Amino acid sequence: MSDKNCFEPICEKEDILNLKSKKRSKLQFEEDSSTQECPLKRNIYGNYTWNMLHTTAIYYPDEPTQEQQQKMRNFFDAIAEFYACKHCKAHFQKDILKNPPQVTSRKDLSIWLCQRHNDVNQLLGKQQFDCSFENLEKRWRTGCQ
Amino acid sequence: MSDKNCFEPICEKEDILNLKSKKRSKLQFEEDSSTQECPLKRNIYGNYTWNMLHTTAIYYPDEPTQEQQQKMRNFFDAIAEFYACKHCKAHFQKDILKNPPQVTSRKDLSIWLCQRHNDVNQLLGKQQFDCSFENLEKRWRTGCQ
Repeated sequence: MSDKNCFEPICEKEDILNLKSKKRSKLQFEEDSSTQECPLKRNIYGNYTWNMLHTTAIYYPDEPTQEQQQKMRNFFDAIAEFYACKHCKAHFQKDILKNPPQVTSRKDLSIWLCQRHNDVNQLLGKQQFDCSFENLEKRWRTGCQ
Repeated sequence: MSDKNCFEPICEKEDILNLKSKKRSKLQFEEDSSTQECPLKRNIYGNYTWNMLHTTAIYYPDEPTQEQQQKMRNFFDAIAEFYACKHCKAHFQKDILKNPPQVTSRKDLSIWLCQRHNDVNQLLGKQQFDCSFENLEKRWRTGCQ
């Protein structure tokens, strides 16, 4: 286990950056292919979840109904309750209590989510992401075409 | 676009299997690293989402409260509403109408989710996965230690 606060298998951290590049490529390929057999480690689980969330947010309606807004609140409420990494979840619970999901539009939701990701980036000493909507649209929906 | 039913960027399918292996490794690495800049294609979005869901399900409580059960129902209700790939979502909506989320325990939820994934595997001509709980625990939580 690589996290002193957590003894669940999900807390073990794959030290990707320190692997030699050949092994790293193989590892990355295995992680994405359907033949991969090992449970996700915390950093991969986090990466997949953020990718999934940002993509989902950028396809959220521009003008969601009240029912859709409630469903989106419920979605993040469930993530905060069931996210498999315990202490990541504890951080997220505190963070969204201070910063409730902004569900009134695709733009608001996408920017809000980017800011939550930046809160985690800051905690991990990672770079801040540019959360302008133009940048988010490009990054998660329209870029690379 | 590689899907005649869908003209959104998320419907474009990365033809990973036909890429040469060197390019494939590079591509896979880029997809997982934080330096990756392109929006997710449908198959990667699907892969990340299934990985996220199976991991979350295998850490669900063995004896969830009524409130937790409702939150988990809400979670899948939101996935069915907001999943970014439109026709994947339409399939999932029909599937969970016939097969509502089994939220009474970690075991029931994990097996139910595996069966939903197998419904998609069948649709895509992929192999069926062994949905025994022993296998799911190993695959998503305890294996490779």
